Amino acid sequence: MTTALIVHYSLAADNLAHAQERAVAIAHEQTAELSPEVIRMVAPDTALRGEVLSVDAAAEDYTARIAFGLDCLGPDLAQLLNVLFGNISLQDGILIHHIDWPEALLHTHGGPLLGIEGMRDLVGVHNRPLLCAATKPMGLDSASLANACAAFAEGGMDLIKDDHGLGNQPTARTLERLTRCVDAVAESNARTGHNTLYLPHISADRRRMEAQAEAAKRAGCRMVLVNPGLVGLDAMSWIRDDYGLGVMAHPAMVGGLMRAKHGFTPPVLLGDLFRLAGADAVIFPNTGGRFPRFDADTVADINQHLRNPMGSLKPAFPTLGGGVNVARARHWMDHYGNDIVLLIGGSLYAQGDLVGASRRLREALESQA
Amino acid sequence: MTTALIVHYSLAADNLAHAQERAVAIAHEQTAELSPEVIRMVAPDTALRGEVLSVDAAAEDYTARIAFGLDCLGPDLAQLLNVLFGNISLQDGILIHHIDWPEALLHTHGGPLLGIEGMRDLVGVHNRPLLCAATKPMGLDSASLANACAAFAEGGMDLIKDDHGLGNQPTARTLERLTRCVDAVAESNARTGHNTLYLPHISADRRRMEAQAEAAKRAGCRMVLVNPGLVGLDAMSWIRDDYGLGVMAHPAMVGGLMRAKHGFTPPVLLGDLFRLAGADAVIFPNTGGRFPRFDADTVADINQHLRNPMGSLKPAFPTLGGGVNVARARHWMDHYGNDIVLLIGGSLYAQGDLVGASRRLREALESQA
Repeated sequence: MTTALIVHYSLAADNLAHAQERAVAIAHEQTAELSPEVIRMVAPDTALRGEVLSVDAAAEDYTARIAFGLDCLGPDLAQLLNVLFGNISLQDGILIHHIDWPEALLHTHGGPLLGIEGMRDLVGVHNRPLLCAATKPMGLDSASLANACAAFAEGGMDLIKDDHGLGNQPTARTLERLTRCVDAVAESNARTGHNTLYLPHISADRRRMEAQAEAAKRAGCRMVLVNPGLVGLDAMSWIRDDYGLGVMAHPAMVGGLMRAKHGFTPPVLLGDLFRLAGADAVIFPNTGGRFPRFDADTVADINQHLRNPMGSLKPAFPTLGGGVNVARARHWMDHYGNDIVLLIGGSLYAQGDLVGASRRLREALESQA
Repeated sequence: MTTALIVHYSLAADNLAHAQERAVAIAHEQTAELSPEVIRMVAPDTALRGEVLSVDAAAEDYTARIAFGLDCLGPDLAQLLNVLFGNISLQDGILIHHIDWPEALLHTHGGPLLGIEGMRDLVGVHNRPLLCAATKPMGLDSASLANACAAFAEGGMDLIKDDHGLGNQPTARTLERLTRCVDAVAESNARTGHNTLYLPHISADRRRMEAQAEAAKRAGCRMVLVNPGLVGLDAMSWIRDDYGLGVMAHPAMVGGLMRAKHGFTPPVLLGDLFRLAGADAVIFPNTGGRFPRFDADTVADINQHLRNPMGSLKPAFPTLGGGVNVARARHWMDHYGNDIVLLIGGSLYAQGDLVGASRRLREALESQA
């Protein structure tokens, strides 16, 4: 087991010597931020910096492995992000495609509270994918959104999350929306015997976000929806630790950090990092939807990074969204296995009758399960 | 004065019809997240969505203007970011190159606490650029970093900020480093009569970050260094509102949101958005340093977005870093004008004698000022 964080980069470079030069520059840029010459003058024995382990030619570019000692990091997600990609985000052609995680670091950040099994226990569904609906659109009042919740719960959806675009708009203020939707789902559950969970979107400047998390906790929610790209990666571990709530993570805004040749690959960012920071479920676009960058291989890779063993961390639920169609739900279950959440929005609403649409969807999954 | 947020996008598209289609898709994706057909069924009168004002062919691509009513936003920076670039960050070829800001929104978020004049008053320097040094490298203990602070203050640097890579590492824990550096600068100031300010780097998971901000306030700091890309854009307004401290912002991590053809242009993100969210000074790479994407035109544009009138917001200090050389300091003053901060790191350390190096730098700027 390594005691350093080992980061695997794909580097654009003119030749091997240039790639080696870039790797050394990264090892310094992300830590001491001084050139080797100045470090020798100022702090020859004490400066912390990355160590270039290898630089190799790859198919189209170069691969470099750089080790960062855990002393570079400290206890915070912010500094982990900073060492991984802080200053070099301002450069070009640097892609993090793999990270070797030391167990000590996994332990520091902790990962999911519930994980896949914990979420399955909450909704009482163990032998098929979970089904998730979304309250939308922005502009509806809280009563109408709560009506949609009631219908989805009545129809047997396992999870109902707020649309991530529902912030604290005047048309449906977060705290009122939260209360009404919780009540609507609880009433449906009492009638049907389902254990449908409602996940309010918790998103605001800090003090208001605390009030939202507090309200979710008080109302009996067990999970919330969080956008780490909008409110900070540490928002997830904060929700986990301070409120004991599970987290479904949304990928809004972090697309900028997942360019084809610069940033993180989607499996590293949405898989490793989101899971590390406390996501129990991670939403990302399924292949074939509105987001062409997420092809079949990428989706399969993200699934693996969320579900496969990762030291002491619990596995997290891949949550496929971005245009998942009711008619294809069964296909995706057969394709990706049972341990997924299918997030279905527009194609439920398009059927008009939300109760019937939800019921048919659930039956389609359960018919041969 | 407009009452909507009007966003100007550069769009990659095959032809004008395709660009128009993309613009309509963006207007929906960033708001209702339902197709026009489904909106007509579900919420024909109430759904909020963007309105495409124009789509035109430009030199290499297309330009679209989309208006978002303020009801889409609510009071939080998170939802502003989300409407601007949340889901579409996961697509390609969408660049925000200009925003028309309604005064109501500027008022909501407030902008800088101190602004350029407020910072000048604190350090007592009104007729030349401010000079900023950095404590580094990561790995030195707090006593050594405090010694560097003492030397920079003795030599007459106006500002000393922590290196943004100094988090809460075991080699120099934030709270101890902060206390020692504050004391060292205060002692120098008492001796020299300077008003040098020390800006601790405030960066951690939320609860620890609160303790750090509290400690900075208690120790008498007037400003802190914050990385919005690591801890959230709202961290700046939170520091401003809850602690009454000024903020110098660092651009680590947000390079991912400023790709050449996707994301925000640097003047919009580092100029408009950082200023809006409360930055009194914004660090970014000067041209000719280690970050080739920041050419002379880009730097000049960022300067303008930080300094030019922006409704009721105070102007903020462009803070040029990323390899600014002592020998060129005078040149940059002549080139960009007096209202800049020159952030000089490695090239001060390379001279060995930090007091002498700082003094010579200040004299170079003051010689004909």
